[in-house]
Amino acid sequence: MRQTPIGIDRVIAPQSIALIGATEDYAKFGGRIFHHLVEFGYPGTIYPINPRRETVLGLRAYPSISAVPEAPDLALVAVPAAHLAQTIEDCGKAGVGACVVITAQMAEFGAEGAALEARIVEIARAHAMRLVGPNCMGFIVPAADLALSSTPTLRYSGTFRKGGVALVSQSGALMGSLYAQSHDHGVGLSGMVSIGNQADLELCDFVEGFVDHPGTRVICLYVEGLKSPARLRALALRARAAGKAILAVKAGRTEAGSVMARSHTSSLAGSYSAFETLCRETGIVLLDDPESMILVAGVIDSTPPMGAGGIGVVCSSGGGGAVLADRMALADLPVAAYADVTRARLDPDFQRAHQNNPLDLGAHKGALEFAIFERAIQAVHDDPGVGLMTYVLTPQPLMPETVDCLIATFRRQRKPVLVVLNTSRFGGALRDSLLAAGVPHVARVDDALRVMSTLLALRDAVPRQTAATRPADLGVSQAPRTGFLTEPEVKALLASAGVAVPGAMACADAEAAVLAADGLGYPVVLKGVAADVVHKSDLGLVEVGLRDADAVRAAFARIAVAVAQVAPEQPLRVDVQQMIDPGVELLVGLTQEPGFGPQLVIGAGGVHVELLKDLAQASAPVTPAEAEALLRRLRLWPLLAGSRGQAPVDLPALCHAISRISWVGADLGEALVDLEVNPLRATPGGAYALDGRATLC
Amino acid sequence: MRQTPIGIDRVIAPQSIALIGATEDYAKFGGRIFHHLVEFGYPGTIYPINPRRETVLGLRAYPSISAVPEAPDLALVAVPAAHLAQTIEDCGKAGVGACVVITAQMAEFGAEGAALEARIVEIARAHAMRLVGPNCMGFIVPAADLALSSTPTLRYSGTFRKGGVALVSQSGALMGSLYAQSHDHGVGLSGMVSIGNQADLELCDFVEGFVDHPGTRVICLYVEGLKSPARLRALALRARAAGKAILAVKAGRTEAGSVMARSHTSSLAGSYSAFETLCRETGIVLLDDPESMILVAGVIDSTPPMGAGGIGVVCSSGGGGAVLADRMALADLPVAAYADVTRARLDPDFQRAHQNNPLDLGAHKGALEFAIFERAIQAVHDDPGVGLMTYVLTPQPLMPETVDCLIATFRRQRKPVLVVLNTSRFGGALRDSLLAAGVPHVARVDDALRVMSTLLALRDAVPRQTAATRPADLGVSQAPRTGFLTEPEVKALLASAGVAVPGAMACADAEAAVLAADGLGYPVVLKGVAADVVHKSDLGLVEVGLRDADAVRAAFARIAVAVAQVAPEQPLRVDVQQMIDPGVELLVGLTQEPGFGPQLVIGAGGVHVELLKDLAQASAPVTPAEAEALLRRLRLWPLLAGSRGQAPVDLPALCHAISRISWVGADLGEALVDLEVNPLRATPGGAYALDGRATLC
Repeated sequence: MRQTPIGIDRVIAPQSIALIGATEDYAKFGGRIFHHLVEFGYPGTIYPINPRRETVLGLRAYPSISAVPEAPDLALVAVPAAHLAQTIEDCGKAGVGACVVITAQMAEFGAEGAALEARIVEIARAHAMRLVGPNCMGFIVPAADLALSSTPTLRYSGTFRKGGVALVSQSGALMGSLYAQSHDHGVGLSGMVSIGNQADLELCDFVEGFVDHPGTRVICLYVEGLKSPARLRALALRARAAGKAILAVKAGRTEAGSVMARSHTSSLAGSYSAFETLCRETGIVLLDDPESMILVAGVIDSTPPMGAGGIGVVCSSGGGGAVLADRMALADLPVAAYADVTRARLDPDFQRAHQNNPLDLGAHKGALEFAIFERAIQAVHDDPGVGLMTYVLTPQPLMPETVDCLIATFRRQRKPVLVVLNTSRFGGALRDSLLAAGVPHVARVDDALRVMSTLLALRDAVPRQTAATRPADLGVSQAPRTGFLTEPEVKALLASAGVAVPGAMACADAEAAVLAADGLGYPVVLKGVAADVVHKSDLGLVEVGLRDADAVRAAFARIAVAVAQVAPEQPLRVDVQQMIDPGVELLVGLTQEPGFGPQLVIGAGGVHVELLKDLAQASAPVTPAEAEALLRRLRLWPLLAGSRGQAPVDLPALCHAISRISWVGADLGEALVDLEVNPLRATPGGAYALDGRATLC
Repeated sequence: MRQTPIGIDRVIAPQSIALIGATEDYAKFGGRIFHHLVEFGYPGTIYPINPRRETVLGLRAYPSISAVPEAPDLALVAVPAAHLAQTIEDCGKAGVGACVVITAQMAEFGAEGAALEARIVEIARAHAMRLVGPNCMGFIVPAADLALSSTPTLRYSGTFRKGGVALVSQSGALMGSLYAQSHDHGVGLSGMVSIGNQADLELCDFVEGFVDHPGTRVICLYVEGLKSPARLRALALRARAAGKAILAVKAGRTEAGSVMARSHTSSLAGSYSAFETLCRETGIVLLDDPESMILVAGVIDSTPPMGAGGIGVVCSSGGGGAVLADRMALADLPVAAYADVTRARLDPDFQRAHQNNPLDLGAHKGALEFAIFERAIQAVHDDPGVGLMTYVLTPQPLMPETVDCLIATFRRQRKPVLVVLNTSRFGGALRDSLLAAGVPHVARVDDALRVMSTLLALRDAVPRQTAATRPADLGVSQAPRTGFLTEPEVKALLASAGVAVPGAMACADAEAAVLAADGLGYPVVLKGVAADVVHKSDLGLVEVGLRDADAVRAAFARIAVAVAQVAPEQPLRVDVQQMIDPGVELLVGLTQEPGFGPQLVIGAGGVHVELLKDLAQASAPVTPAEAEALLRRLRLWPLLAGSRGQAPVDLPALCHAISRISWVGADLGEALVDLEVNPLRATPGGAYALDGRATLC
């Protein structure tokens, strides 16, 4: 039995593998894996385990794992569920480093499977043995000449196409698809891992393996449920520091009707948004389609990073160029404005009116000659404001010459060159040339947009490298009690963190309210306080703009009636508050996402929040500068900056308030279920939390 | 010379063609066209015109067009610009039906080219001859065995793939690309036409030709600028009535910075939105990508229309299915809920917890056998709530059997069956089977979403068949004068059309204002009236909520000062208005889009309109019922319907007001530059135009 667990580097590049129940039958999982392992030239030692055979596929077979002369790094286990626990036990006793468990119908099939899954983890842990899966499809690690998977797409590809792209996938079938697609798209792989139910080794273990693997430059993730968000956060920052890109597709982005049924912040900060926030904060680029992710990864692996400036587009179809310009604008992809030097280089061949970006080569002056195309491609590529050049090749004159020119431009390797080979299979031979030269190319504009967006996102990502430092004047927020807090309790919590709240006094009768209003100064607001009540305005508990004592008395009487209706058991309490100037109303929410920590969500306040979904999210706490960056992502930003002659709001005060609210979330940690300040009113003279609610546990 | 112009049916299916400057040189435009015409078996008569040759390509050549023994239907003209006018003149004299003018560098190259272009139109008209182009790439009309184009993609395809898909394209290069792509995607064509500069025959002429062409079922348009929107509207309604679909891609969807620089309605109702509105109102489906349009058209041509209900999805990869479910939800594609009968059919093979839509075949119970897949595919296809079945085929066990089963299901032709062959070229042989059987298939999820969205849109389109009938109590609105109207002038215009406006009185001094307020009842609003001034609130010209005479006097004094500042030349006028209850504020705008007629735009009012782009557009006039349909498209609809316990607004009054405003636009016609009611306030007790501006010419 082994003393220390095997390292992840050894799991993905094992020196020896035992195949439990080894067979030559390609129709069986284990048989396919065995054939693939041999066909792809695995250089380590293979130990077939089969008590009924002397040899399998020409290799000496062993009657049991205990009969193997050394403790193998891996054992592949594809036995029926009934034999699984015993097999794992045998492997553990034999000192196996890790079992790759293909066996399915486990936790994903109900309580019985879940119990068996828990049992094999327990057995493995007792022997310091690791598990991959169960319900996984194994690995394909070209960097180690290892084809330890049953996917039939392996035989389709023939030999490996080696390169710097890795995949960690929660879906085994998807790994098989993506393997075939990577081959077609000319993507070079370092390794692909199917992690199945993640009973022991989980996504981050393999991410860590590839971050530390020297030959891997881009790591793709297919994620359904993330076990350790904090670990992924740390790994993503480490990958970025090492110059490696991480791309991800996450399932579970929509929750159909369930989202609508929840109350404000919990619906607005569902787990996809927490994942998206983690990605934004660490430089992981999130995509919508697994096949595209692999294709984009291949491009990143084969080009320099995008340079400064915008995108330069050259095309051979004016129509195609016009549609592409629209789609780039809709995707927020910046096109470069040509420098004077570029215009001068284009002048001999193109009228100024035709010197657009995209540049339509078909609009050249005079007779057609290839030198025109060549000069144009080079002029746009060399433009100092072009950080990436895209050439859209539709069927056109001089195609082979154009492709040669693009290959030569690519070989200068100063900035990325992307070819959109929009020629259908008509461009077959051209595609082969580009593939042989390693020039990034895609067949569809959909993918071109994804490639450009990803290169831009990788260039412009600003990962949050360090946690915010607690301000000197800020104490640690304490939970006053558990349950649903009243508005005054929430405001007290906020005020103690340095968030401005309107002056307010609690009153039990109308004359006390008049006295309080006289002290605060008119106009005032009256609010009935009732525990466990939300949407106070709708219930008649709030009256605003009260300008004198009589108005206060009349409002008090109405609110007293309303409170008696909604909370008849509670003592009457009405708060008299200072009335704050008009301004822009924001919602600032905090939610708890398991594993992700407290999440801050800001957006348009009031009734619009549900309709407009104008939200920005961050992990709490945020600094005032980070708060400003969040505000700038909102569509309502121009209102804060002062639009149509309005005075701008007091931005430092607003950012201070948001930052301080985020610290409340960070300090309360898991004690906070949710908290919502709505509205936080931003005025030219300050930012005030006018209302708030919170639930603590 | 001919007496009557040739019909469009004869232009796209000519019985004889003269080739001016006929050559055997495939490197030349004219030579390529000649070769293609012969190779693709054009059955009509070809007259090569070449004074220096006896025969060309084995056909007898003629020294000039005048020497041809009959007046040919078409003449193909690819001569240099210097000879163009003379050639057109010669063709006209010879009685040619239509010239297809390839010659480029015309209007698109500046004033000289534009003059030549105008000249050849004049010559042609004098001879009752039609022109196609100039600057076009000709036609490809498989239905007439006609390959009258220079595009090299013709030789790539080999023989025609005939079918029911037509294309009318403003870009010649794009037609060539789409021809190749149609071939690869297995799309059968009736005809493709490149219309170039549309100097004479324009897009709608060819649309009409294909609407009336019996073999055409789907018409694709690539549009840059539309010459006759009203004609396209009529043709689209005619096509729909004939059971033909029209799909379109329009360039010029974004206008980069220019949009932001314009004032409200003109920027919000740019010409792309007018085109989009025309499409929505006529059942044309607008797509974002030309290649996808052809592919989608091919699917529509080969399937029955989508049935009632939602979409049923079956897949072989749980991961792929999860991502597809997300993307379908984001694209507003409805998945069906299985009927009890379907669940009962699935029960033997799938746990209830795994009977999802998408249905993951990989989650079946027990051992794998093909009958499980077959039963599942049939159960989902037969479900009464499934109007379209999509199968996502990733590399999986039993692929050939699965494809055979899908082909058999397709052959039952009861509802559309779409196969997403997401297997990369690994699925090459499967693709050939699907292609041979005519089963719609796409390789990418991007395209699958477009196919499903288009089938759904075609099923659910509700074209506006008839113009609204003028209400009995509504007179025809008359323009009071030209120029920028004051708010009272706009309100008078609206009021005379039956739009409710607050009671108001014009006053020249404070005491008159107090008297007016006493008459209207407090609270009141005061507004300073100044011609040519917009954004009155920002300039201090508006005060609201004035509750007594003193407040009116004080406000009057302040407004008088403000008016004197912004309009010192104008006599002082302050309007005292009834104050309307709080409500939901809308913007209702009218703009004039050349050719499209007056356009109505509604959206969120106030400062939010610019930020939120929550707009719906229609051609004016609209009925109250159509106004309600527009309101339901807005994100703010829940506010109108009464959210969070608020009373719903008076919807009939609101729809009445919007309808009546639209009639003002319809009546003023081209005299109206723009008109904006902002806000139109919808309250539980009515809908009132609180402010408005208009420019007439």
